[in-house]
Amino acid sequence: MTNPTAAMLVIGDEILSGRTQDTNTHHLAGELTMHGINLKEVRVISDDPEPIVAAVQILSATYMHVFTSGGIGPTHDDITADCIAKAFGSHIDIRDDARAILQTHYDAQGLTLNEARLRMARIPDNAILIDNPISKAPGFTLKNVHVMAGVPSIFQAMLASVLPTITGGEPLVSETYRIERGEGEIAAPISDLASAFPTLSIGCYPFQQNGLYGANVVIRGQEPGLVKEAMTRLKAEFPT
Amino acid sequence: MTNPTAAMLVIGDEILSGRTQDTNTHHLAGELTMHGINLKEVRVISDDPEPIVAAVQILSATYMHVFTSGGIGPTHDDITADCIAKAFGSHIDIRDDARAILQTHYDAQGLTLNEARLRMARIPDNAILIDNPISKAPGFTLKNVHVMAGVPSIFQAMLASVLPTITGGEPLVSETYRIERGEGEIAAPISDLASAFPTLSIGCYPFQQNGLYGANVVIRGQEPGLVKEAMTRLKAEFPT
Repeated sequence: MTNPTAAMLVIGDEILSGRTQDTNTHHLAGELTMHGINLKEVRVISDDPEPIVAAVQILSATYMHVFTSGGIGPTHDDITADCIAKAFGSHIDIRDDARAILQTHYDAQGLTLNEARLRMARIPDNAILIDNPISKAPGFTLKNVHVMAGVPSIFQAMLASVLPTITGGEPLVSETYRIERGEGEIAAPISDLASAFPTLSIGCYPFQQNGLYGANVVIRGQEPGLVKEAMTRLKAEFPT
Repeated sequence: MTNPTAAMLVIGDEILSGRTQDTNTHHLAGELTMHGINLKEVRVISDDPEPIVAAVQILSATYMHVFTSGGIGPTHDDITADCIAKAFGSHIDIRDDARAILQTHYDAQGLTLNEARLRMARIPDNAILIDNPISKAPGFTLKNVHVMAGVPSIFQAMLASVLPTITGGEPLVSETYRIERGEGEIAAPISDLASAFPTLSIGCYPFQQNGLYGANVVIRGQEPGLVKEAMTRLKAEFPT
């Protein structure tokens, strides 16, 4: 069997200017390799509509999957969603399902879902939302393009949401456990767990809600029995 | 004046597999920004002739300068030099000037300039050698493509050799302001600011630290006075 192919598209002037070092590509590369998907090409382009649309079209036509990072926030330079829609000739507007997620999130914090924040509910028709356990504003998958945030912790959490939905070269089992304690408290035991299960990938994605700190711990691996064993040990360490 | 444009081409399966994190792009981006050259695009591709030749041709035709890293060592998978020659229809063989540099280097160490090492003397006709003060095997410039090593210390040394030979533009002035408020709250005023200063690039980069949400707002431009004016207005809007 030939493994699926993929490309990464990093959208970000801050990478090209040297202000920020892209780390999402390195994370994605490692995860895809574990998932049996061959990352064949990476492109970094600026926050301009024309290069984004052109790159999405060519990469989407060339590879089985395209992952993008950056440009899906609430500010004027966040134009990725509209560019993806344009690349596929799809209609895009504020979508009710995405708006509901944001409404719940901001209501809980006593904040207003203002015009800027509503930009993050702009999702193309027929796109499937990607869960964002950290800051809620969802990513989305349209055709074979998976659109995710640029902030590394959110990119990683979204990737953990979307990767299990993608058929890889070898099956990968993933289980998530929510722990309502600060990351600093759980980091050492989880590190020990990772050492005890070197063939598993154990990820920790912190969240903060209404002053409550916690983390979603994701355990991934190719052997279901091992994943279950590690998850059992994790739950014993941190009972609900 | 419009600044020169550039692209980076990273050649390396080890980056795509997640084994190694590319740091050359970040270094290049910072150096180019200081030199007044706008890095517009980065591509990472695998060690295969076809994608290398195709990428060199398109990037060389699109941008004023192309910088490559990787694939110029002594092993069978170091195919960059031959691919660059092919992209431009140039003749390539072991060149006397490059061979002399290697001969001196290996003689001094009592080592043989064997067939593998001689591969590093394969340089296209009409290319200008790029000095490598670290491990001697030279890079080269052919037309507007600057071919350099993948090892970061050598890449950096080669870039230091080649950059002074390239005419730069106006260095880009950049100022950053940290605002400890959610992006959704500051998006509208920053969008207004971007509209008021259309020649400046105003980017908003959110962060999340220990449950604190905020954003770094970066104002970039070629006119220091304008950047300062926009920054003054931003600080007045969001005083610390």
